[in-house]
Amino acid sequence: MFTNRLFFDISDTQKTEELRSKILTEYNSNQTGYYNLPIENENLLSDIDIWSSKIRNIQNIIVIGVGGSSLGTKAIYSMLHHEKKANTPNLCFLENIDPITIKKTLQNIKFEESLFFLVSKSGTTLDTISIAKIVMVHFGIFPNNRYFGKHFAVITDNGSALNKFANEYGLKSFFVPKNVGGRFSVLSAVGIVPLTLCGIDTTNLLSGAAECKEEFFIGKSTVLLKKAIAYTIKSEQNINVLFSYSDIFCEFNAWYTQLWAESLGKKRGNERVGLTPIGLIGAIDQHSFLQLIVDGPKDKSVTFIRVENMADNILIPDISLKYIEKADIKKGISAATLLNEQALATMKSIISEGIVTDDIILEKADAFHAGYLIYYFELLTSLCGLLLEINTYNQPGVEIGKKILLDKLGK
Amino acid sequence: MFTNRLFFDISDTQKTEELRSKILTEYNSNQTGYYNLPIENENLLSDIDIWSSKIRNIQNIIVIGVGGSSLGTKAIYSMLHHEKKANTPNLCFLENIDPITIKKTLQNIKFEESLFFLVSKSGTTLDTISIAKIVMVHFGIFPNNRYFGKHFAVITDNGSALNKFANEYGLKSFFVPKNVGGRFSVLSAVGIVPLTLCGIDTTNLLSGAAECKEEFFIGKSTVLLKKAIAYTIKSEQNINVLFSYSDIFCEFNAWYTQLWAESLGKKRGNERVGLTPIGLIGAIDQHSFLQLIVDGPKDKSVTFIRVENMADNILIPDISLKYIEKADIKKGISAATLLNEQALATMKSIISEGIVTDDIILEKADAFHAGYLIYYFELLTSLCGLLLEINTYNQPGVEIGKKILLDKLGK
Repeated sequence: MFTNRLFFDISDTQKTEELRSKILTEYNSNQTGYYNLPIENENLLSDIDIWSSKIRNIQNIIVIGVGGSSLGTKAIYSMLHHEKKANTPNLCFLENIDPITIKKTLQNIKFEESLFFLVSKSGTTLDTISIAKIVMVHFGIFPNNRYFGKHFAVITDNGSALNKFANEYGLKSFFVPKNVGGRFSVLSAVGIVPLTLCGIDTTNLLSGAAECKEEFFIGKSTVLLKKAIAYTIKSEQNINVLFSYSDIFCEFNAWYTQLWAESLGKKRGNERVGLTPIGLIGAIDQHSFLQLIVDGPKDKSVTFIRVENMADNILIPDISLKYIEKADIKKGISAATLLNEQALATMKSIISEGIVTDDIILEKADAFHAGYLIYYFELLTSLCGLLLEINTYNQPGVEIGKKILLDKLGK
Repeated sequence: MFTNRLFFDISDTQKTEELRSKILTEYNSNQTGYYNLPIENENLLSDIDIWSSKIRNIQNIIVIGVGGSSLGTKAIYSMLHHEKKANTPNLCFLENIDPITIKKTLQNIKFEESLFFLVSKSGTTLDTISIAKIVMVHFGIFPNNRYFGKHFAVITDNGSALNKFANEYGLKSFFVPKNVGGRFSVLSAVGIVPLTLCGIDTTNLLSGAAECKEEFFIGKSTVLLKKAIAYTIKSEQNINVLFSYSDIFCEFNAWYTQLWAESLGKKRGNERVGLTPIGLIGAIDQHSFLQLIVDGPKDKSVTFIRVENMADNILIPDISLKYIEKADIKKGISAATLLNEQALATMKSIISEGIVTDDIILEKADAFHAGYLIYYFELLTSLCGLLLEINTYNQPGVEIGKKILLDKLGK
């Protein structure tokens, strides 16, 4: 079960119903394709199944991609790494054109055990293609090496430059639907292909997302509508903190950061609007960022994310260390319970300062709940974009820098 | 060489000189001990040297600590991992009371090859002591195991509860000076002991910090004074973004986040003041957060950090991938150059939007420059705290949550 408790009140029914009607219009227009990804992937899963029988002895899958091509996949892999199937490949990422990282990654893998996915919607992302060139030349695989198609595949738009390149050299292409933007693409081939091959239960992942979709569009849950209103209209908070209580959410926070910042930071005519995302990990960041939330300016909302029943439970030994008895706790408390109680105590202290707070509880850290969580934040982002009256799905501001770079270094 | 170019102007000489006089008063009061850490550590280094000859066959050093007890050490280790001495132990961290992480960490180490440091200034941090209990019981080492003192040591205040515990069981204690707060303690035993044992050149690290100290206090550089004024008085920006161009800075960003948030988010009488830190990694976050900076509200300043001469250089192959020629770049460009040019192009695009921007250039990613950088940001934090007229060195806001937790779980 997925629960989201709100510690603030939005009682304007007219506003929530207006917002619901707006998102239905967007949904029905079919211009925004991510809405239907949870129920459209049956062919993809059987396609992966057939193709995976052709690749053997793969120990490492390396995604070469950045932003929307890597963050969602990383988020889900980190959340579910503890429950991946046995004897499945490891997943790693080459995202940054950083020589130290590239060198270290290439040192740690053997080519004959590796499968590289070039992931780029447009197919021409400069960093991604440059890294791919380094990898190809490092392993002497390009051009015309007969193992090329066994160790490289692409995930891109049908008909993109990268797709044409793949066809030319006999590489397999998996496709991202044209109407699905990069940062909303994790439940398309972008995430589903590498995650399935690495032993993540993507069937359940998609079921969780489908359940979220159904509860929102058919079950008419109003929680997300209220949150979107609180963040955009009824509040002075323009910084939205995710306080996620477990290390498994570290990459999920990074995915959320991209989704939120790139979708909601926009020019609207002559105005600049936007909400600033911040991702924290509990209990670690109680010893870091928390002080600013409690005593600093009230420009932040805080969403807690926590897991009710964590796997791999460990009891805190009921022993007393001489002189450090102050840190003794009651008998029978597990690490997971202490983590959850840390979240609850922090939440209470924040609420007492009058800060806009809510609490997301995942029953388990499994594929179903991960899928639900991903789709939940995608919906929330779309709702905030509608209220801000911006285009949630473009990113015009990053083009200037790309142009400056290509003018200087391009051929 | 360490260079910081400012793309904004603060010409109020009276203001900068007032600020210099304020920090000199604080420095001379001796109440804030971090200022002198770079030149006070000679005894510590020889103490480590003598002690390290007694511990043998250690492959893993595990720091059990959180916040100020781990973040700085992690930051420096990540920045300098690529140049650590050969055949030195690995460094890892147990920070979070998260059962999944604890289980994974303990599975990957052998007790007989491991040395654990319990790091806590007060010595009673609940998470840290609970993790320590789990580790001790997991390896059957407590109480009265004759190997206890060979595999455990502590870093804490002289006379703290943890120090007394260590004395009781014959564990080595390294001390943090009493007037050095946790988040300003990385250049004390907290960072220097584990980093030295793991093959980091801490002598040069301290030299770099000493150089920064000298250039500020004796050379009378005004750059930091101008930055502090820009962030606190002359500007509407209350979000301060670090855009660090290399994966090696990922943990440095987390250290900066604690330093900035916990030091500068405070109540001042009935007011709430504070600056919000955000850490980004280039070029990755050009595909994430950048859109919000360029087109969103002008509430952010941006500091670029980059390395002029990176180690491990890799050339981008001068090949053309058919159909993807759009991503071709000039011949002879290295990955490091492309990374730097990405920073410069992004910087130009941000400056053109009129955003408060500056550019920190490290000549190399070595111990000297890492030490300089750490001390530089500590000074900047102190200067901003003086201008905000708050106590930079306490954290009263986090006590409420701790009390709520202990009321519920304490014995």
